Amino acid sequence: MAIRLDSSSRTTVARNPERSRERILNAAFKEFAAKGFAGARVDQIARRAGINKRMLYHYFGDKESLFRHVLRRKMAERKTWGIATPDEPAESLPYWFDLACKDLDWIRLLEWEALQFLDKSLIDEERRGAATADAVARIARRQKLGFLDDTFSPEQILLAMVGLTWFPVAFPQLTRLVTGQSPFNQDFQTAQREFLRRFAQAFSKNDHRKTAQNGSRRNGHAKEVK
Amino acid sequence: MAIRLDSSSRTTVARNPERSRERILNAAFKEFAAKGFAGARVDQIARRAGINKRMLYHYFGDKESLFRHVLRRKMAERKTWGIATPDEPAESLPYWFDLACKDLDWIRLLEWEALQFLDKSLIDEERRGAATADAVARIARRQKLGFLDDTFSPEQILLAMVGLTWFPVAFPQLTRLVTGQSPFNQDFQTAQREFLRRFAQAFSKNDHRKTAQNGSRRNGHAKEVK
Repeated sequence: MAIRLDSSSRTTVARNPERSRERILNAAFKEFAAKGFAGARVDQIARRAGINKRMLYHYFGDKESLFRHVLRRKMAERKTWGIATPDEPAESLPYWFDLACKDLDWIRLLEWEALQFLDKSLIDEERRGAATADAVARIARRQKLGFLDDTFSPEQILLAMVGLTWFPVAFPQLTRLVTGQSPFNQDFQTAQREFLRRFAQAFSKNDHRKTAQNGSRRNGHAKEVK
Repeated sequence: MAIRLDSSSRTTVARNPERSRERILNAAFKEFAAKGFAGARVDQIARRAGINKRMLYHYFGDKESLFRHVLRRKMAERKTWGIATPDEPAESLPYWFDLACKDLDWIRLLEWEALQFLDKSLIDEERRGAATADAVARIARRQKLGFLDDTFSPEQILLAMVGLTWFPVAFPQLTRLVTGQSPFNQDFQTAQREFLRRFAQAFSKNDHRKTAQNGSRRNGHAKEVK
């Protein structure tokens, strides 16, 4: 009882600016995902991070600037994931679904944004546009290499792939109504991964290849992955 | 200036209970879509409807009961749309996309719900489960008739179709980042409809049929629809 956790954590923080920045960004990400940009409160973020509010402003400026830092950190992380995406759609769709499941807070943050910024320009829109353009370019590259159907535009493929892989997590209540299972249920996830692996042929180069995959290659994938 | 609009509209309402109920439900749907169940305010709904709050409680009870009425009216409307869905996926996907565009408030209401009811049971869950089961049964019927691939479960097909057709509207800011266009832009919608029409073969019975469609039938569809 002699140790006061609160003040001791503040001391740690003051001694280690790197770690305290990290704690603030984690706390801010949680708060923005839970309440959206408009509803999030900086003093709540400071409390979650165990840091006083003045220190937080010192590191990150106001709420909008803090949000921008959170976005940029997530964009950097998601870029790494984007680059690591397998070329074969039969592998990339389950991979993106797994990322959606583990990155639920990101999807929730984007849902808040969809609701709150419908007609407004986005915070950090320019940089986010550049990050999205990179994702489109990675799709176009896979089309050139023959992994993805090049009769669709890369933008349409990207939207369709994200829609398919995110939807059950973005609308968990609908998933539950439709399947009787939460999207965070292991059995649901196993079945969904398998569905996406097979459904992925819809994005493949051409129908002849699809027919070929339907026999040996599709089974091959099922063994390769996981 | 002698006419006070506010009191005159209240008089109309009192004289026509059917119409006043309708006005309340419309106003409530708008308010729930704009702010979610938690954020919606009954006095704001009464104001939007031009009806006093006591009258509103008299017709619909409390906020939760009002929400239930809004849901049920939407479920009835969407059931009609569900029954009218074309059997061919090349027609049903563009049809569902069009519905998503025109029913944006419904999708927004469900996004609020996804954010606010993550682990809680839903308002009117049982009846909504029954409505969803009907939608799954309609998919299963189309599988039996050979319109949809029956090697996928009807639940998976339903989730995938809704995910593909709703995503651009549910995440308008991502659609804008990816394509440079709002999902409510006419050019975007025309291109998306065409994409969905072609992509729909992914749901078709088998790859042989897909290959056949790829030639004559796919073109046939493009002419039939619109």
